[in-house]
Amino acid sequence: MTPNIYENWSRSRMSRITPAQAKEKPELERRVSYKELPEKYQNVVVGCAECHNMRPDQHKDTFDHQGARVHTVVTPADCAVCHPFEREQFSRNLMSEAHGNLENNPVYADLTQSTNGPLTFENMALSHGTPDAQTSADSCLFCHGTRLTVEKFETRYTDIGPMEFPKISGWPNQGVGRINPDDSKGSCSACHTRHEFAIEMARKPYTCSECHKGPDVPAYKVYKVSKHANIVDSLAHGKEWDFNAVPWTAGEDFTAPTCATCHVSLVTTPDGRVQAKRTHQMNDRLAWRIFGLIYAHAHPKSADTTIIKNKDGLPLPTALDGTPAAEYLISEKEQEKRNNTMKGVCQSCHTRGWVNGHFDRFEHTIETTNHQTGVATQIMARAWEEKAADQNDSLFNESIERRWVEQWLFYGNSTRFASAMMGADYGVFANGRWYQSKNPHDMLELLKVKLKQAEDKESK
Amino acid sequence: MTPNIYENWSRSRMSRITPAQAKEKPELERRVSYKELPEKYQNVVVGCAECHNMRPDQHKDTFDHQGARVHTVVTPADCAVCHPFEREQFSRNLMSEAHGNLENNPVYADLTQSTNGPLTFENMALSHGTPDAQTSADSCLFCHGTRLTVEKFETRYTDIGPMEFPKISGWPNQGVGRINPDDSKGSCSACHTRHEFAIEMARKPYTCSECHKGPDVPAYKVYKVSKHANIVDSLAHGKEWDFNAVPWTAGEDFTAPTCATCHVSLVTTPDGRVQAKRTHQMNDRLAWRIFGLIYAHAHPKSADTTIIKNKDGLPLPTALDGTPAAEYLISEKEQEKRNNTMKGVCQSCHTRGWVNGHFDRFEHTIETTNHQTGVATQIMARAWEEKAADQNDSLFNESIERRWVEQWLFYGNSTRFASAMMGADYGVFANGRWYQSKNPHDMLELLKVKLKQAEDKESK
Amino acid sequence: MTPNIYENWSRSRMSRITPAQAKEKPELERRVSYKELPEKYQNVVVGCAECHNMRPDQHKDTFDHQGARVHTVVTPADCAVCHPFEREQFSRNLMSEAHGNLENNPVYADLTQSTNGPLTFENMALSHGTPDAQTSADSCLFCHGTRLTVEKFETRYTDIGPMEFPKISGWPNQGVGRINPDDSKGSCSACHTRHEFAIEMARKPYTCSECHKGPDVPAYKVYKVSKHANIVDSLAHGKEWDFNAVPWTAGEDFTAPTCATCHVSLVTTPDGRVQAKRTHQMNDRLAWRIFGLIYAHAHPKSADTTIIKNKDGLPLPTALDGTPAAEYLISEKEQEKRNNTMKGVCQSCHTRGWVNGHFDRFEHTIETTNHQTGVATQIMARAWEEKAADQNDSLFNESIERRWVEQWLFYGNSTRFASAMMGADYGVFANGRWYQSKNPHDMLELLKVKLKQAEDKESK
Repeated sequence: MTPNIYENWSRSRMSRITPAQAKEKPELERRVSYKELPEKYQNVVVGCAECHNMRPDQHKDTFDHQGARVHTVVTPADCAVCHPFEREQFSRNLMSEAHGNLENNPVYADLTQSTNGPLTFENMALSHGTPDAQTSADSCLFCHGTRLTVEKFETRYTDIGPMEFPKISGWPNQGVGRINPDDSKGSCSACHTRHEFAIEMARKPYTCSECHKGPDVPAYKVYKVSKHANIVDSLAHGKEWDFNAVPWTAGEDFTAPTCATCHVSLVTTPDGRVQAKRTHQMNDRLAWRIFGLIYAHAHPKSADTTIIKNKDGLPLPTALDGTPAAEYLISEKEQEKRNNTMKGVCQSCHTRGWVNGHFDRFEHTIETTNHQTGVATQIMARAWEEKAADQNDSLFNESIERRWVEQWLFYGNSTRFASAMMGADYGVFANGRWYQSKNPHDMLELLKVKLKQAEDKESK
Repeated sequence: MTPNIYENWSRSRMSRITPAQAKEKPELERRVSYKELPEKYQNVVVGCAECHNMRPDQHKDTFDHQGARVHTVVTPADCAVCHPFEREQFSRNLMSEAHGNLENNPVYADLTQSTNGPLTFENMALSHGTPDAQTSADSCLFCHGTRLTVEKFETRYTDIGPMEFPKISGWPNQGVGRINPDDSKGSCSACHTRHEFAIEMARKPYTCSECHKGPDVPAYKVYKVSKHANIVDSLAHGKEWDFNAVPWTAGEDFTAPTCATCHVSLVTTPDGRVQAKRTHQMNDRLAWRIFGLIYAHAHPKSADTTIIKNKDGLPLPTALDGTPAAEYLISEKEQEKRNNTMKGVCQSCHTRGWVNGHFDRFEHTIETTNHQTGVATQIMARAWEEKAADQNDSLFNESIERRWVEQWLFYGNSTRFASAMMGADYGVFANGRWYQSKNPHDMLELLKVKLKQAEDKESK
Repeated sequence: MTPNIYENWSRSRMSRITPAQAKEKPELERRVSYKELPEKYQNVVVGCAECHNMRPDQHKDTFDHQGARVHTVVTPADCAVCHPFEREQFSRNLMSEAHGNLENNPVYADLTQSTNGPLTFENMALSHGTPDAQTSADSCLFCHGTRLTVEKFETRYTDIGPMEFPKISGWPNQGVGRINPDDSKGSCSACHTRHEFAIEMARKPYTCSECHKGPDVPAYKVYKVSKHANIVDSLAHGKEWDFNAVPWTAGEDFTAPTCATCHVSLVTTPDGRVQAKRTHQMNDRLAWRIFGLIYAHAHPKSADTTIIKNKDGLPLPTALDGTPAAEYLISEKEQEKRNNTMKGVCQSCHTRGWVNGHFDRFEHTIETTNHQTGVATQIMARAWEEKAADQNDSLFNESIERRWVEQWLFYGNSTRFASAMMGADYGVFANGRWYQSKNPHDMLELLKVKLKQAEDKESK
């Protein structure tokens, strides 16, 4: 039926090496992390059955396939049989909670509704209905992950006779925070694309671009115009670069970083020193969360961000006036530690003076972009105060509110990403400082118009 | 004079194989489709003369070149001598009529004038003049195709003495719907780039990006952040992928699709089954036209869309209230057939449950995006009704009208392309649902201002 | 400490060939241009010391490194020891003056302040403070180049004991117009990425994209959807293309141009004729400056553009009414000469009729885009005249002024780049003519609102 799945798998490392062989590799070359493995898995290559028959009792999507108990959706809990360490690390990542962090936060639910809800135009006013599940799956949850629910089992007539298949709502989806039919969270195949599972893919920036390219989080776009990407694009293809090597040796296997180099991979020097340990908890190397909500802030402690309350009681890591919800965020000491881990990667290629100069500038940009967000927020607050905008129906539906959102979600973020990864114009004219400084003027013009309308209404 | 033309050609398959040899290939490997061929063409490779001397009497651009009757512009009618089937299929494609579909539709001519016409500012009002031919050739017709007209013959002094060359207005141009000096339509070299004519190029997405990247039709941008493109970008270069193989075998020659795979190519399985027949009538696999005019709709029956009239008499496939011009559009049964053809391609790599889940979600998105366009259109209609905008001078010139156009042309289209090809953020923050839901608010604010201005004017 | 620097260098040509050997190459293959060279440099490969110890007395950043007098920043004056001709050419390039051209022009300083200055919101008005140095370095000067100033020397404790390092403000930076610690201007490594210095990189378009991608100067984006880039992207990787060959032979080493081909490289034909001489004064082949300030204009004569005064005394190459500051711009005759040089490159692959058709269309687009800028400027002038906007505080801070800037800086430029390099949609819907014709309507709406506000204020 699906010939390419088999062909893909047959190109994979999984099809050529058994877990037992994988475990015998020297530590730095090892790609599995299990301590113990049921004997039946040890000495066979990892084929269809090994993943899709695993843990059938935990899987609500298990069905009968010619006598075998098979499930459609392979989950991190399945992968963790051989890769428990990576799975555990990933679970401490914001990404593993990406579904709930969005869906269970009432502020973000308001944003989602304003974005995805079906519009109604009545009495010269617009209202937003509740977004339906298919729309959410097709938009936010495409990356954040859907909730996979087995609705029912249905009979389909196949070449080998009638079969019962689970009908799973929210499927297909490979979002990083997917809620799975075995109640686990996440999807390893978001980055480790099935069924070839090439580490080469996870290490190339295209993988990250699937979720990190829009104006809210333009990481890939910024990276793409950086010197780093320039080197990769110019020199990596058809050359002696090796995207498959484990460990990944700077200067030998590659001479410029991709996303994975700085954020995830085990990086070594040609003489075998570890420059950075592999981590699937990406924030291990991140002192700041530059994605502003609504200001950039020290990284949250917990992967589950719904527990955060700012000083005004809102589930946001900063208050509207900029005060961080400090107890939920990492300390300055922890920030320093994480910065040093990241700087270790930089120092594969850059001297300390260079690296410190870069980070000083970057942290200054966090401050100044937060300042510009603050000024836009003052205008917004004034509009709410003077009833030129309605804070109660939603924070995010009206024209002026949308502009305010763009101030931090688009322009603040873009400028910070550009600073972090040296993607020049994304800090200026491409959704950067030009817009950061233009947008408050537009907000102010709109505010003046709305104030006049309110005044006229009153005087009638 | 132009050494690279020869060099290019010498790398081409055309320079190494005669039409007779090409015809002897097994059916699935065959790249020519002629039944009969004049004997003089059969046993020579296809060089300069074979294409540029062909059918001289039909070509108004024929000129004398050292005794030979040569023409500059090689047309689909020339190519059809060896490839009649492909040319015939292509003629049933909207693209082959792209020139006339734009130029001969008064609604689109209005849009073109509002976009390209030289502006005049007088008495606090702006007006749009008629766009000139060079501007049209440099913009819309770059992709849609110009009309090539032999203006005159002029003498140029060359290394081999004075020669008469045709002066062709509209030249150069390689648009898919070009009107040629032999009265044929289209340009094969739009995709099959001269003079190497590599099928590899037609199969790579960069070719399609030349016309399908802007905010009106962001197919390439969306594809680029999809898992499909991620696999191609990560694994196809310098690998065992073969972009030249005919037939094109999924899992063997490639493991992820490009534009051509899904829309055009002959795709087979490793055991030789045909997964999809080659078609140059791309809509063979397209149930819907997701390019909204102004709503997404069942694909038109005729390649020439100027014949369509909606219920209000406008040459548009849907009415402003959303009613499709049903008699000009394919039936639900035909839609199902085309969907099944496309699903056949998907099933090279995906199970039926996956594919159906994807298509259900996609068709739902067609509905919801059409709904959001409908709401914007209600606001627009209100503005016209209340004379806050002038429907009579043009549908597309004023500020509020431009926003309305962007609702369907940019945001509706972007959201649907993102859904069709899994390019997440193009359905949300990158010209997707965020703008689809923000734009009507902006239209409404503008409408209120214009109504007040009208009221003030009246009260004076 | 930084293992990759060494690894990178060891892959470079510099590590394998001595200057004396480089000089012995046949003229067309030669990559050095020195006439005489101190003997100590002649017969050793160019390693760390050769560049970083050079000219220590001129370098304010010289410090003591285990007895050697080393400097951090290698400058064009250092490179010029072996490559004097290239350095001299580059110095006649606008880019080499990019720092001063921006920083020493009061009109652009106004633009910079409006973009980068910290905002204050008070009494329903917004004001822009002076941008700080770190922000400038992180934005405009990232490409234009910072001023590198040795602030002090500080002791750092290294593996080999305490050392004194210079603390350089403005560092790191690789901008093309950088002011260096030896008072030279520019940075060769902007394009010739250290420490591999591969000509392959300078020739690939990714290098140019680092600075030429934003909406103000979308050269790379436009190129990327052109037929030229399509050929490069489809056929250059893992093929017989040679991006390292000197000279660079059209048809043999490559079959489609990158940025460097048309603007910089020494291009030859397979039979050894020179199609275009190498130039590091890129404007050698440029008749026009299509980057509108505020209109596109004949190229400036002097690399230092701060000397230009238009008829109204402003340091701009054109007046607000479009009159060029003719005495500072090249003559029509010089334009023709430069056009012919560029056309020589085109004619490697295109006939004369094709090339002339292209250039006619392009020059027409310069005219029409200037016209559309003119209309927007009329609206702007009216606003200033009627005090609906304040010309005196800044030309660039208010909402309507920002829209006016976008008319020429984004939409005019984008349309012209699209025309120059055949990147279709960037001339229409992607920041092209659609916006060029929409934006004046938006300006007019805003003007009407501001006039009414002024009127209301007066009547109170």
